[in-house]
Amino acid sequence: MKLNEVAENVLKVIDSYGFKQEGAFNLRLNGMAVCHGDSRHIRIVKKEDKPGIDIYISGEAEQEQVHIPVVMSEPGMKDVVYNDFYIEDGADVTIVAGCGIHNDGCSESRHDGIHAFHVGKNANVKYVENHYAEGTGSGDKVLNPVTKIYVGENSVFTLETTQIKGVDSTERESFIELAEGAKLYVTEKLMTHRAQTAVSNMDVQLNGENSSARIVSRSVARGTSRQVFHPKAVGNALCHAHVQCDSIIMDQARISSIPEINANHVDAQIVHEAAIGRINSEQLTKLMTFGLSEEEAEAVIIETFLN
Amino acid sequence: MKLNEVAENVLKVIDSYGFKQEGAFNLRLNGMAVCHGDSRHIRIVKKEDKPGIDIYISGEAEQEQVHIPVVMSEPGMKDVVYNDFYIEDGADVTIVAGCGIHNDGCSESRHDGIHAFHVGKNANVKYVENHYAEGTGSGDKVLNPVTKIYVGENSVFTLETTQIKGVDSTERESFIELAEGAKLYVTEKLMTHRAQTAVSNMDVQLNGENSSARIVSRSVARGTSRQVFHPKAVGNALCHAHVQCDSIIMDQARISSIPEINANHVDAQIVHEAAIGRINSEQLTKLMTFGLSEEEAEAVIIETFLN
Repeated sequence: MKLNEVAENVLKVIDSYGFKQEGAFNLRLNGMAVCHGDSRHIRIVKKEDKPGIDIYISGEAEQEQVHIPVVMSEPGMKDVVYNDFYIEDGADVTIVAGCGIHNDGCSESRHDGIHAFHVGKNANVKYVENHYAEGTGSGDKVLNPVTKIYVGENSVFTLETTQIKGVDSTERESFIELAEGAKLYVTEKLMTHRAQTAVSNMDVQLNGENSSARIVSRSVARGTSRQVFHPKAVGNALCHAHVQCDSIIMDQARISSIPEINANHVDAQIVHEAAIGRINSEQLTKLMTFGLSEEEAEAVIIETFLN
Repeated sequence: MKLNEVAENVLKVIDSYGFKQEGAFNLRLNGMAVCHGDSRHIRIVKKEDKPGIDIYISGEAEQEQVHIPVVMSEPGMKDVVYNDFYIEDGADVTIVAGCGIHNDGCSESRHDGIHAFHVGKNANVKYVENHYAEGTGSGDKVLNPVTKIYVGENSVFTLETTQIKGVDSTERESFIELAEGAKLYVTEKLMTHRAQTAVSNMDVQLNGENSSARIVSRSVARGTSRQVFHPKAVGNALCHAHVQCDSIIMDQARISSIPEINANHVDAQIVHEAAIGRINSEQLTKLMTFGLSEEEAEAVIIETFLN
C-alpha cells in the first residue's frame, strides 16, 4: 500500500534496517494492522481476542528478519497492542520493532506495546526496538512498552532498545528469564529533553546453570527532564551478570539509578557499575579548539557516548 | 569500678582502641550507665528525659578520644539508648562506640543505639563502631542502630562500622547530610553466619557545594544468612560520591545489593560499583598448595578481604 509522507518519514527513523513491504512484516498505523506479509519461515497471525499479532518463527529460519513497526500519526489516540513471538529451537532471526508518534494536535498520543518472546533452545534472536516522537502540537507523546522474554536452553537473546528523542513520557517494564546456558545481551539507550520523564524497570532472572547477562544502559538527560533506572539482576544458579549504567546529566535534569543485584546461589557472580556525571569538559575544550561551537562539541560527545 | 570477666572480654572485642576507665568515657552495662568520666575538652551529661547521654566536644579538642561502649550480658533484655554528640567548630576527635552482647539464655537480647552527630565547621571526627555477640544460649542477639550525622562546612567525618560476628539480626539505618566542602568516608564491614539476617540502609545527602562521599562496603555471608544493602547517594550540588559494595557469598547464603544514586544537579558526579561473588578459587588453590587446609585458606582470604 502507499503510505503518506509523515508515515514514511517516521518509518525511516524507527526502522534503521530499512522498512520494506516485503518478506515477513506487519505495519500498524493508527491502531490498525494496515498491511502484512509472511515469509517461508515466518508466519504472522492476527489475534482474534485482542489487538495484536502472533508471530511464529520456524527453526529453519537462518539470518532472517521480521519488521513490525508501529506508526501513530493521528493525535489523541491510545493504542494498546499485544504481540507474541513463538521462536522454535534453532531459529536465527532479527526482529525489528519500534514505534514512532507524529502528533500535531493538543491531545495525548499513546502507544503501549506488550510483547512476549517465547524462545526455544539453541536459538539466536536479536530484537531491535526504536522509540521516537515528533510533531508541532502540544499533546504529549507517550510510550509504555512491556517486554517479557523467556530464553530457552543455550539460546542467545540480544535486545537493543533506543529512545531516540521526542518521547514526553515513558515507563518501560522488562522481565527476562534465562534457562540453562542462555545468554542475554541488552543495550539500552535513552535521550530525554525538556520536561520529559523516563522510567525503566528491568528484571532479569538467571535461573539456569551457566546462564549469563550483560546489560549496558546509556542515557543523556537534558532540560528539566527526569530519568529513573531500576535494573535488577537475580542470580538463582551458577551464572554471571554484569550491569553497567552510564548517564550524562545536563542543564537542570535529574537522574536516578537504582540497580539491584541479588545473589541467591553461591555460584552466582554479579557485578554492577553505575556512573552519573556531566559532559567531560576536557573533551569539550579539545573539540572547541578544533573550531566547533560549544553546542556542536556537545552534540559530537553525546553521539559518541550513545553509539 | 571492677567489671566481671564476661564484660571485660566483650569490651576487648568491641573496643579495638582499648577501653580504660579514664579520660572521657561512658560504659553502659545491661541498660545502665555504670561509670563515666569527663576530660578537659569532652563533657558527658546524662539525659533527663530518656535513656542516653549528651556528649559535648570542645573545639579545642585535638586528637582526643571518647569511649562509649555498651555491654549486654543479661539475656532477655531490650535496651534503647539515645546518644547525642555536639561537636564544636575545629574539634579533632575519635569516638569509639560499639555494642557487645553475651547471651547464655533463651530469650532475645536487643540493643538499639540511636545516635545523632551534630558536627560544626572545620572539624575532624572519626566514629568507630563495632558490633559483636556471643553466648551459648538459643536467645537471639539483635542490634538495630540508627545513626544520624550532620556534617558542617569543611568538616571531615570518618565512619568505620564493623559487624564482627554473632549478631542474629540487624537493621541499620544511617542518614547523613553534608554541608559545603564537607567530606564523608564510610567503611562498612559485615559478616553473617548461620541463619543471621542483616539489613543496612544508608542515605547520604550531598547538599553543599564541593561536598564529597566515599563509601566502601565489604561483606561476607555464610551459612543460610541473608544480607540486604541499600546505600543511597543523592547529589544536590556540585559534589562527588563514590559507592563501592563488594560481597563474598558462601554456602547457601543470599545477598542483595540495591544501591541508589541520584543526581539532582548538573555538577553532581556519582559513581557506584557493586560485586557479589564466591571466594576466589585461584587464591584458594594457591594457599592450599602452601599446605593450608580449605578452611584455613578460606579464613585467610576472608580476613584479607575484610581488612
